Amino acid sequence: MGDLSPTQQATNWLTAFEGALSRGDVAAAVGMFDAECYWRDLVSFTWNLKTCEGKEAIADMLAAVLGKVKPSHWQIEGEASSGNGITEAWFTFETAAAKGRGLLRLKGDKCWTLLTTMTELKGFEEHKGAARPKGAEHGVVRERKTWLERKAEEEAALGYSKQPYCVIIGGGQGGIALGARLKRLNVPTIIIEKNARPGDSWRNRYKSLCLHDPVWYDHLPYLPFPDDWPVFSPKDKIGDWLEMYTKVMELNYWSSTECKSAHYDEAKQEWTVVVERDGKPVTLRPKQLVLATGMSAVPNMVSYPGAETFKGVQHHSSRHGSGEDYRGKKCIVIGSNNSAHDICADLWEHGADVTMVQRSSTHIAKSDTLMDLALGGLYSEAAVKNGITTDKADLIFASVPYKIMHTFHIPVYQEMAKRDADLYQRLERAGFMLDFGEDGSGLFMKYLRRGSGYYIDVGASELIADGKVKLKSGVTVKEIKEHSVVFSDGSELPADLIVYATGYGSMNGWAAKLISKDVADKVGKCWGLGSATAKDPGPWEGELRNMWKPTQQPGLWFHGGNLHQSRHYSQFLSLQLKARQEAIPTPVYGMSEVHHVS
Amino acid sequence: MGDLSPTQQATNWLTAFEGALSRGDVAAAVGMFDAECYWRDLVSFTWNLKTCEGKEAIADMLAAVLGKVKPSHWQIEGEASSGNGITEAWFTFETAAAKGRGLLRLKGDKCWTLLTTMTELKGFEEHKGAARPKGAEHGVVRERKTWLERKAEEEAALGYSKQPYCVIIGGGQGGIALGARLKRLNVPTIIIEKNARPGDSWRNRYKSLCLHDPVWYDHLPYLPFPDDWPVFSPKDKIGDWLEMYTKVMELNYWSSTECKSAHYDEAKQEWTVVVERDGKPVTLRPKQLVLATGMSAVPNMVSYPGAETFKGVQHHSSRHGSGEDYRGKKCIVIGSNNSAHDICADLWEHGADVTMVQRSSTHIAKSDTLMDLALGGLYSEAAVKNGITTDKADLIFASVPYKIMHTFHIPVYQEMAKRDADLYQRLERAGFMLDFGEDGSGLFMKYLRRGSGYYIDVGASELIADGKVKLKSGVTVKEIKEHSVVFSDGSELPADLIVYATGYGSMNGWAAKLISKDVADKVGKCWGLGSATAKDPGPWEGELRNMWKPTQQPGLWFHGGNLHQSRHYSQFLSLQLKARQEAIPTPVYGMSEVHHVS
Repeated sequence: MGDLSPTQQATNWLTAFEGALSRGDVAAAVGMFDAECYWRDLVSFTWNLKTCEGKEAIADMLAAVLGKVKPSHWQIEGEASSGNGITEAWFTFETAAAKGRGLLRLKGDKCWTLLTTMTELKGFEEHKGAARPKGAEHGVVRERKTWLERKAEEEAALGYSKQPYCVIIGGGQGGIALGARLKRLNVPTIIIEKNARPGDSWRNRYKSLCLHDPVWYDHLPYLPFPDDWPVFSPKDKIGDWLEMYTKVMELNYWSSTECKSAHYDEAKQEWTVVVERDGKPVTLRPKQLVLATGMSAVPNMVSYPGAETFKGVQHHSSRHGSGEDYRGKKCIVIGSNNSAHDICADLWEHGADVTMVQRSSTHIAKSDTLMDLALGGLYSEAAVKNGITTDKADLIFASVPYKIMHTFHIPVYQEMAKRDADLYQRLERAGFMLDFGEDGSGLFMKYLRRGSGYYIDVGASELIADGKVKLKSGVTVKEIKEHSVVFSDGSELPADLIVYATGYGSMNGWAAKLISKDVADKVGKCWGLGSATAKDPGPWEGELRNMWKPTQQPGLWFHGGNLHQSRHYSQFLSLQLKARQEAIPTPVYGMSEVHHVS
Repeated sequence: MGDLSPTQQATNWLTAFEGALSRGDVAAAVGMFDAECYWRDLVSFTWNLKTCEGKEAIADMLAAVLGKVKPSHWQIEGEASSGNGITEAWFTFETAAAKGRGLLRLKGDKCWTLLTTMTELKGFEEHKGAARPKGAEHGVVRERKTWLERKAEEEAALGYSKQPYCVIIGGGQGGIALGARLKRLNVPTIIIEKNARPGDSWRNRYKSLCLHDPVWYDHLPYLPFPDDWPVFSPKDKIGDWLEMYTKVMELNYWSSTECKSAHYDEAKQEWTVVVERDGKPVTLRPKQLVLATGMSAVPNMVSYPGAETFKGVQHHSSRHGSGEDYRGKKCIVIGSNNSAHDICADLWEHGADVTMVQRSSTHIAKSDTLMDLALGGLYSEAAVKNGITTDKADLIFASVPYKIMHTFHIPVYQEMAKRDADLYQRLERAGFMLDFGEDGSGLFMKYLRRGSGYYIDVGASELIADGKVKLKSGVTVKEIKEHSVVFSDGSELPADLIVYATGYGSMNGWAAKLISKDVADKVGKCWGLGSATAKDPGPWEGELRNMWKPTQQPGLWFHGGNLHQSRHYSQFLSLQLKARQEAIPTPVYGMSEVHHVS
């Protein structure tokens, strides 16, 4: 193989692989993988999000699906590259039902990682580029309807005289991004949002909030931010963008609407969803129900003894507004993750007396360092210059199997620990309990495993290191009195404000609330990989639980995550929904068992 | 030269040209041009929009400006191409004040056409890409202001406690595109718009209106349409886009505001602009005033004898709504250009009895043919695939000197006449008077010369050819009676509705209305090239009169045209305004004389 170019090497592999698959020769196909190997499929082979780990898992999957999937037309895209003993190549392929795109990594002449993703369903492609609508209907048409009239008619009918195929509960970035994709796929959809305007889920947060992820990571589908968009978007600005986006994409977005209940009729295979729209009940009967209520939607309210006697203000961080209301006041913030830090800094900046209560150790990553070391290669101005489009970055990101993802992250955070050693030392001297994750794999693995446990430092850590924001660390709250908080070490602090920055519960809490506890338990915990680390119990799952893929409850889906995930995974969820709408067979391979109810 | 590559040829020319210019050797520089030659400069050399036609004009220009402009760093961009004996190359360059981009065409080793354009002012570059704002202010800042607070403060102050540097009258596509560029250049600006919402200037037009130009031609600066945007945008959809764009770009857009008067104080070099905002008078004192009231903003109202006695409905086409109000009614549409055709078709489609009154011959271009033959090379899906970005297309478009532009268009319309011969024959049989422009150069030259005289056929021509829309051709209106119209040939038609699709006056009509007749006359006619064809009297101007460049009235500018022009020329107008704001010397070369008052 030594004298072959990377492109020739990858082409040879793809050709041989296509041959084996065409012949139905699973053994030959599996023989082309390395001893350590991973095949991650997003919908195209499995109608599921599935990582097959090892040859045996790949053989099982192929044996089950090959006859139906009928893959073909494997074709390298551009030139392959090589480095560190790995050859990397983009490729396209087809199945009986769809077109796809993938990323192949070879070790020598064997496959190490393979990513296959569905890009479009044959016969149901988006009408874009050369296939875009004409807009004006040329010629002469008696009683023609204008765009505005058709839009008004659709808005008036959908949900009343005409039932949507899909209802999405939650109109934040997740619901909006998915709604945009379903609109382009012509899947009649209504998005239900309790707030008055798209973007309010951002606007209603604490005043100082800015996105912690940078702009290159945050684009919505189809309409990227302009090139002067700030690196870290202020919350109201991203709120306005979401509102504009919702209108431009012509989404059927029911704001000021609350979902009251949802019930699945197994016989009819249909949901009955009762919502209250502008105060009036409306019953919707969709075939598919998506909960896009957000990872951070069911507040974890901790109930300390005596809390009901507290005479000051106490609320969950999700209800916290601006620090300017607490000038000169004594404020206690319980928690030490992102929101806790942001709120402490905002309070201090407005002249409050602030104490953070750190209950357990926290991972701190300086924003600049994080952007530089962890995200810069894929999501940065430099990446854009290197030709790494958002779409490519998302696929590269998706191509790293969860099983070994931490091994790539550990050295990044070792470097971070070195680079910012001074800050970490000063934090520890101030009594702050630090960690980098149980295996040192840092922020993103914590996000995937448990969705918590870290602060992306944009300044508050200095306040803590300096003692400007006071710290109670390694204690718990024992009791709350009328004007104070008593801690487990016996100390007591006066308080005018208590903020519970105590995080959020699993998304299936929403299923319990809206549908039933039975359905919530049947579906089980959402998010997390089964890494057997804190708040992410095993067994190993290999993919995020229940996210963007079929669940144990037919017709029920979960969508959520940050802007990156909302953008990227909405593609695969929308294709799964479209296929069902069009009655394309979607045999799901490798449904996950449920190991945890929440 | 025969064995040099096009790139080598162009590089050699640029190197020698830079040498001559650096030495101040005008004779040597001019010697590098062909006997037939054109240098079109957009702001970078002349602080004007100026085409120098021939060696003498180029020599005069260089002699006047070279010492101040100090051009340097001429650098070919990408690979040059050649065909039909012409070598074509993109290049960048610098001047003392700015950076620029250009397009060079060589015949042999001599320059045939040269385009030089200013792209950014040194020291005042837009904050985009790697220079974008950070958004979040990291670190700890006492009493920090959020994005929303700063925005609210700016909105409250601008026009009251803080004066804008620039006021734009008219918030259609022109005002909005220019406003977006000025925002990025940090030029405090207020846009004045009489309608309630951005986009209303489109929404308020007749119901069936769609853009006649295709999507690739219509992008606004910075934020291209998504890739499923219709080819011909319906008016309400483009209205919504403009509204969204205005918000996303954070323009200071005063809707429901009317400009009452404007007066220039020569001593203070400042305008006093009185506007009525939501019913209350506000006085603005900007240094620069831009009239972006649109090419089609001062209706030509023709006053026929007896019109005041008419008992039916009569209005200018700009006031016409939907045909559905005239079902079964007898309708007379005076005029035979775009609006007249669209309105006739809409009335007919809604079951009205319609007669078009054609007063003079009209150029008809079928939309599909026009897209294919005239625009497709630069503005189409195929062009996008060929790597012709909107920016490149605009510059290629701009690089063709007006003096010879018609010679490129004549063969296009000869081909159109052949391709659509059947339609043209049937129209003539129906009595329709056709033309292709006085020199056969067709639609776009008519647009540039007079802004009228054509219909882009999207269906109405078939109605006329079939006799479904009746035609009175070659006649004028003699008299209007209570229920009828009498024509110059003595015939009389009953009428319930008369639509005056009689076009629009010169933009300096707005200067007369808002400022004074003296200023309007001093500035003179807007638009047109001086081609000595109908409605575009000579002498030859070489550029559109008064558009996007300094006028005889200091501090007064005109901006307008279609979406393409609003996008492209707003760049050059915004740079001229920014330079003045920053007191960068802007000696204008080649100010045009005024030959016509309107």
